[in-house]
Amino acid sequence: MKIDILTLFPSMFDGVLQSSIMKKAQDNGVFHYNAIDFRDYADNKHNKVDDYPYGGGAGMVLMPQPIFRAVEAIEKSEEKPPRVILMCPQGERYTQKKAEELAEEEHLIFICGHYEGYDERIREHLVTDEISIGDFVLTGGELGAMVVIDSVVRLLPDGLGNETSAKEDSFSTGLLEHPHYTRPAEFQGHIAPEVLRSGHHGKIDEWRKKESLRRTYLRRPDLLETYPLSKLEQALLAEVKAEEKNK
Amino acid sequence: MKIDILTLFPSMFDGVLQSSIMKKAQDNGVFHYNAIDFRDYADNKHNKVDDYPYGGGAGMVLMPQPIFRAVEAIEKSEEKPPRVILMCPQGERYTQKKAEELAEEEHLIFICGHYEGYDERIREHLVTDEISIGDFVLTGGELGAMVVIDSVVRLLPDGLGNETSAKEDSFSTGLLEHPHYTRPAEFQGHIAPEVLRSGHHGKIDEWRKKESLRRTYLRRPDLLETYPLSKLEQALLAEVKAEEKNK
Repeated sequence: MKIDILTLFPSMFDGVLQSSIMKKAQDNGVFHYNAIDFRDYADNKHNKVDDYPYGGGAGMVLMPQPIFRAVEAIEKSEEKPPRVILMCPQGERYTQKKAEELAEEEHLIFICGHYEGYDERIREHLVTDEISIGDFVLTGGELGAMVVIDSVVRLLPDGLGNETSAKEDSFSTGLLEHPHYTRPAEFQGHIAPEVLRSGHHGKIDEWRKKESLRRTYLRRPDLLETYPLSKLEQALLAEVKAEEKNK
Repeated sequence: MKIDILTLFPSMFDGVLQSSIMKKAQDNGVFHYNAIDFRDYADNKHNKVDDYPYGGGAGMVLMPQPIFRAVEAIEKSEEKPPRVILMCPQGERYTQKKAEELAEEEHLIFICGHYEGYDERIREHLVTDEISIGDFVLTGGELGAMVVIDSVVRLLPDGLGNETSAKEDSFSTGLLEHPHYTRPAEFQGHIAPEVLRSGHHGKIDEWRKKESLRRTYLRRPDLLETYPLSKLEQALLAEVKAEEKNK
């Protein structure tokens, strides 16, 4: 996968994209990225990228010209044109489903503003997707772009290397994960559940399924509204509800 | 504000926290951070921080010992103890309200796992908050911690310096922002709205209020459920609904 990132702070990406799994994924040819300072594409002599908003008010607005020109300068496939993604609070809320959709693409272009607005014509005539990672305000779009890149790359073939499996994670099953325990069995007086140390795989699977349902029921009941419960899961969830009621 | 971050990849934070607004905020004494490699606190001879899960299964689980010890080693105020925040998909969904709450604190400690589970005893007996930035899977907690730090620091006094005002951003008003336009008035045949260039402040304010309502109505109608509409806003929203119906 080819990834281009338009930003005024290209060096922001180095620490995140050149560490750990993201670094290995690049070493393995899973993706490569290019952080482009769109200030270099401004056609005015001071390389200005923003200006005052029409109509007045606080804050500056990113001008269309440098961003259009920077996107135009990126080499693109005609067969499979890139997705041009604007990171902004007004965008579609990012989810795992969107990550899976973007993981099918060959080329992503991210546009990251920084504590400023975007001229509306960028939104209307240049971008294919507007994404928000959540209902909170950040100083720029860079962190959002890193979040999207990380979540997409880990879904690509060999994106995780041999580190782990993407299969049992929260949200990929539709439920929150069950609790995990590892050594020591007793730590500061707190003991890992007996059943997990029993070696009885049937009971372990059932305990995990039940605790996964419990955690989802207590913390994210909205996820249960769309999750297709099996017969066993229905019975376990009923037990959970009765137990929690009697607490 | 004092921020400590437990991570296996301390250098991941450099690019993000040492650029732009976050760098200036540190230069101005608004916050300082310390990225702590909790591997240094493992009491086994190979500095191992994870182990196989009790009960079997794919993936590794972070052991309680190194993380407890690393948190214990951090200097803390007894008067106002720190918030100890676990970044995990099972946590409370992060919102601007939570950012405002955390901005009242003096000391935040973040625990970032990396493509592994946490031993449940960390969750139960060490942390004060579990936070998820959204329903998507990342390779680690580091990006989530950066998102929280960025959104909290910008709310601190002088956190944004003189760069911009935090007041009119999306989510701080409860509505999505209205569109912005800046020079040139015509770009590639697309013209910025006449009203914004009219100099008539009453009309500009009304246009912006209406377009903010339109964008919220079209993209995030859920936000309107809790937003207290003024009389004028009710009238503008009714106009928006009629216009969108006739489109």
